Amino acid sequence: MSHSTKPSSLRITEVGPRDGLQNQSGLVSTAAKIAFVDALVKAGVAEVEVSSFVSPKWVPQLADAAEVFTGVARTPDVVLSALIPNLRGMERALEAGVEKVSVFAAATDAFSLKNTNAPTSVVIDRFEPVLALAKSQGLPVRGYISCVVQCPYAGRVDVLDVVEIVKRLLDLGVDEIDFGETMGVAVPCDIARLYDATSGVVEPAATTLHMHDTRGTGLACVLAAYELGVRSFDTSSGGLGGCPYAPGAAGNIATEDVVFCFEQMAISTGVDLDQLIRAGMIIENALGRPLPGRAYRARKSQGHF
Amino acid sequence: MSHSTKPSSLRITEVGPRDGLQNQSGLVSTAAKIAFVDALVKAGVAEVEVSSFVSPKWVPQLADAAEVFTGVARTPDVVLSALIPNLRGMERALEAGVEKVSVFAAATDAFSLKNTNAPTSVVIDRFEPVLALAKSQGLPVRGYISCVVQCPYAGRVDVLDVVEIVKRLLDLGVDEIDFGETMGVAVPCDIARLYDATSGVVEPAATTLHMHDTRGTGLACVLAAYELGVRSFDTSSGGLGGCPYAPGAAGNIATEDVVFCFEQMAISTGVDLDQLIRAGMIIENALGRPLPGRAYRARKSQGHF
Repeated sequence: MSHSTKPSSLRITEVGPRDGLQNQSGLVSTAAKIAFVDALVKAGVAEVEVSSFVSPKWVPQLADAAEVFTGVARTPDVVLSALIPNLRGMERALEAGVEKVSVFAAATDAFSLKNTNAPTSVVIDRFEPVLALAKSQGLPVRGYISCVVQCPYAGRVDVLDVVEIVKRLLDLGVDEIDFGETMGVAVPCDIARLYDATSGVVEPAATTLHMHDTRGTGLACVLAAYELGVRSFDTSSGGLGGCPYAPGAAGNIATEDVVFCFEQMAISTGVDLDQLIRAGMIIENALGRPLPGRAYRARKSQGHF
Repeated sequence: MSHSTKPSSLRITEVGPRDGLQNQSGLVSTAAKIAFVDALVKAGVAEVEVSSFVSPKWVPQLADAAEVFTGVARTPDVVLSALIPNLRGMERALEAGVEKVSVFAAATDAFSLKNTNAPTSVVIDRFEPVLALAKSQGLPVRGYISCVVQCPYAGRVDVLDVVEIVKRLLDLGVDEIDFGETMGVAVPCDIARLYDATSGVVEPAATTLHMHDTRGTGLACVLAAYELGVRSFDTSSGGLGGCPYAPGAAGNIATEDVVFCFEQMAISTGVDLDQLIRAGMIIENALGRPLPGRAYRARKSQGHF
């Protein structure tokens, strides 16, 4: 169903339905989420992080994770993944037919303690039964490490701490390391430092970079990572994400900005930009407020959608 | 009055008061413009393009160019420039105390014919008396070349055409070449091609790059140009610019994004980010709508302004 027939040089994981939506106010209907994911699949991304099997108490917006998973169209070309916080979530996700699993650790104890009431090492210990069950079902596992450059509580992060967490996640059997630049403060030299420090334990080509675009530096960091061998990026349709009522809290880097830029550089992403705009318009209409993504807005204003 | 005591490695020209404001609907008061320019000067930019001495018939928003120039505070550290379309404008600008002159040519005849009813070569011929008068008063002259990558009417631009226009402008006595990426479509390889073609006739270090950030690629292009030796960039406070009612028409690259990124890379811009936020808030309040700049919004939301 992916539009492109030539092989992609880049792997785009669309995280809008999970990371983009999770903090949005105003519940989006399950039907709109399903239409959004279906449109993203049609646009030709490699993977969609469809939802999160966390407790609805913590993330009410994603309480319908199972319904979304059972409602979306499947295709062998596009992996449908979900964020899994614990064994109960893993069991629910399997019932719903998840195809890939993401677990989430922070680079600092300060962040882990605030969010999960335990230091990072304990958080990672808790992944063991989740990974065991995922592996028993033959599902690949992505290990997120958030706050790889800066932490909202502990400030600048020591890349050597990130290296240790990479080692632990790989020892546990995680298949893919995903570096999350949660704060959106990184500039290209930060990305160079991160990969310089971690390349001894994980090849850049075996990682995914997850940028937020809070200060407009996201694309420059993505390009810097590409130069270092990274070929997998998390992005969000229309720049969906952040908190719409807190102007400083921006979302993930916009999928359209990344796709536009690489396609202009003759580096294939496999993604059809016009189909992507249609996907963005679905969630924009459901939310009832404009998405901030620049290439999204530019393309939408030019086209006939 | 510039805040920094160490020499800047980068030259930031703030074009918000001219390029940023010129298409904004809702007349901004002369007092607000003066306060905006004064705040930008205080923030420590190297140059402010204060206004344009075009006919008020064409750009009503800048009809008060002379009043703004006579109202702003002067300092030896910051150059106050203006866009000058013709000899009448040059005479008015001299009366108002302009310190530097910008003339404007497009890379394509299609653009020149649409905007000035003459091919580019004729537009450049008309600069002669303007330059003669500017030079007689000892004023430096910047020569803009717009649409250096793409033209809204003629499509992709041949860099060899840009090279020819650079030569003509230098022959006429222009002191500084300013490459305007008007459409906001460039990616770093376009910038590399531009400088590869033009470096035989003008050193990258003798040019200014003027990016629009329509598709989020502006900062990546600025960084690519920096790698090629460019040290002078045009930026706009808070990303002011474009047409607020046409979502695809974005403004210049935001000053704060550029300043934040370079300062994080330990490359001094001479600009104080907090003072810059205060400048942006002046024009944001005057316009009555939020500025789109990302680092602007992030910083403003964190600080106590």
